Amino acid sequence: MCRDPDDGDGDLEPDNAPDEVDEPTRARIADDPYCAFLGIELVALRPGFARTSLSITEDLLNFHGTPHGGAIYSLADAAFAAASNAEGPTALALETNISYYEAADVGETLTATAEREHQRGRTASYLIAVTDGAGEPVARFRGRVYLPG
Amino acid sequence: MCRDPDDGDGDLEPDNAPDEVDEPTRARIADDPYCAFLGIELVALRPGFARTSLSITEDLLNFHGTPHGGAIYSLADAAFAAASNAEGPTALALETNISYYEAADVGETLTATAEREHQRGRTASYLIAVTDGAGEPVARFRGRVYLPG
Amino acid sequence: MCRDPDDGDGDLEPDNAPDEVDEPTRARIADDPYCAFLGIELVALRPGFARTSLSITEDLLNFHGTPHGGAIYSLADAAFAAASNAEGPTALALETNISYYEAADVGETLTATAEREHQRGRTASYLIAVTDGAGEPVARFRGRVYLPG
Amino acid sequence: MCRDPDDGDGDLEPDNAPDEVDEPTRARIADDPYCAFLGIELVALRPGFARTSLSITEDLLNFHGTPHGGAIYSLADAAFAAASNAEGPTALALETNISYYEAADVGETLTATAEREHQRGRTASYLIAVTDGAGEPVARFRGRVYLPG
Repeated sequence: MCRDPDDGDGDLEPDNAPDEVDEPTRARIADDPYCAFLGIELVALRPGFARTSLSITEDLLNFHGTPHGGAIYSLADAAFAAASNAEGPTALALETNISYYEAADVGETLTATAEREHQRGRTASYLIAVTDGAGEPVARFRGRVYLPG
Repeated sequence: MCRDPDDGDGDLEPDNAPDEVDEPTRARIADDPYCAFLGIELVALRPGFARTSLSITEDLLNFHGTPHGGAIYSLADAAFAAASNAEGPTALALETNISYYEAADVGETLTATAEREHQRGRTASYLIAVTDGAGEPVARFRGRVYLPG
Repeated sequence: MCRDPDDGDGDLEPDNAPDEVDEPTRARIADDPYCAFLGIELVALRPGFARTSLSITEDLLNFHGTPHGGAIYSLADAAFAAASNAEGPTALALETNISYYEAADVGETLTATAEREHQRGRTASYLIAVTDGAGEPVARFRGRVYLPG
Repeated sequence: MCRDPDDGDGDLEPDNAPDEVDEPTRARIADDPYCAFLGIELVALRPGFARTSLSITEDLLNFHGTPHGGAIYSLADAAFAAASNAEGPTALALETNISYYEAADVGETLTATAEREHQRGRTASYLIAVTDGAGEPVARFRGRVYLPG
């Protein structure tokens, strides 16, 4: 399960706000086995918006000794999946791309912030920024989902 | 460590073949903590070519109950990293993209096959196909590396 | 209009072949104002497959004196559009990406070959190779279309 | 030649500002044959930033009767090339991708705005937004250049 520190605190998502994610949808998104396995946490969720975080452990390094591209991608992809599924109906990833900018160190916590850029008909597009603890860019991710409706 | 069933069997990479990967490089690539953590195995390695495999476990599922996009990407990215680093000098991922085609079931073993398409100067490009146990396409990945030289 | 040297020659698309493009569809695809404007020719068309060509003129150069990335992209995109619309129903481009490999000279004729890699439900994916007169790679393009049905 | 309405007006780029583009570089970028051929204008240029515009004419339509993806891409690519070459040294496009969002009508003027997102060592990354006359999103483009130095 993706642990969700914001769950229930009301600060970011006040009760009955028109842009709130309903509780069954939030619980479904937070209950992601792969996120739990990697240590990815869901730290914010609104319709079309999500933030995830991941502490870089030794398990997540590649043979260069830096965070594996797959781990950075997974963090961004988790934010993308959360943001695009936050309104309930299933959204399926069609295409994504990622630019790697900077490496990070063991012990650092990376954050991925996903925002919807466009939605029309049966597809929607998201921009995801991955940053380190100092807010410096680590990677840029873009993704497009299909909404079977 | 990425387990490498082909290591030393001589079938695919005969001793002294001009396209063989030297043993220190092979060992370095096979010793990837993130691959070991996810269960990604290195099943073939030649200069500009690599194949990896991954059995889909419950840990690798997303909240839809299908293999997480991050897991499929990680499998492809591991083949990309292995193929692009097989000649020794470090190759760093700049840009990748992935198209998701089909889902897969728990228990299935997915395979990613990376082939170099082009290399010139300080960059090289790879095409990676991800297939299921029946050889059907699951995803298509492309990546470009920078060779600091 | 995209001139189509293969139109009616029967070599590649024998009459009544199950994989033939019907004449109204072929005419519709060949009648592309932008292709005519740039000088892009449609040289082969089958369901899920198309080939286009473009001679590099001075008009197509950028401020570096090499073929503009937009011209190379347009050639590939024209093959992608032709291949994905060859079965009649409209296909709309969602996402594309391109890797630039080598420059080309004025007077050279570039060729783009588009092949469908996957189709399921309402989307389909194509791989397009752009090569120079010697068959050497100039660029690699991938694209995904939506099929409104 | 890309016509540059801002050339010399001093409003956006005051004399001697540290972020000004020197005149030979500006002239070199503005003198782009392909931009002139398509009708793409350079409307702003600063280091790491550029804006281009294009009026949609009948010549730029595809066989669906909407602006050709290659024309929209070319507009974005021209902004990307201008922004990434504005500091003088040559920047070469390695990888780009584009998401198509909305069509546009004949007679509309589209604008592409390129901003540098990251630069380190020998590569730099740009985000380009393509909008219509009302500022609505038409496409999103990302690109990465190599700086041979």
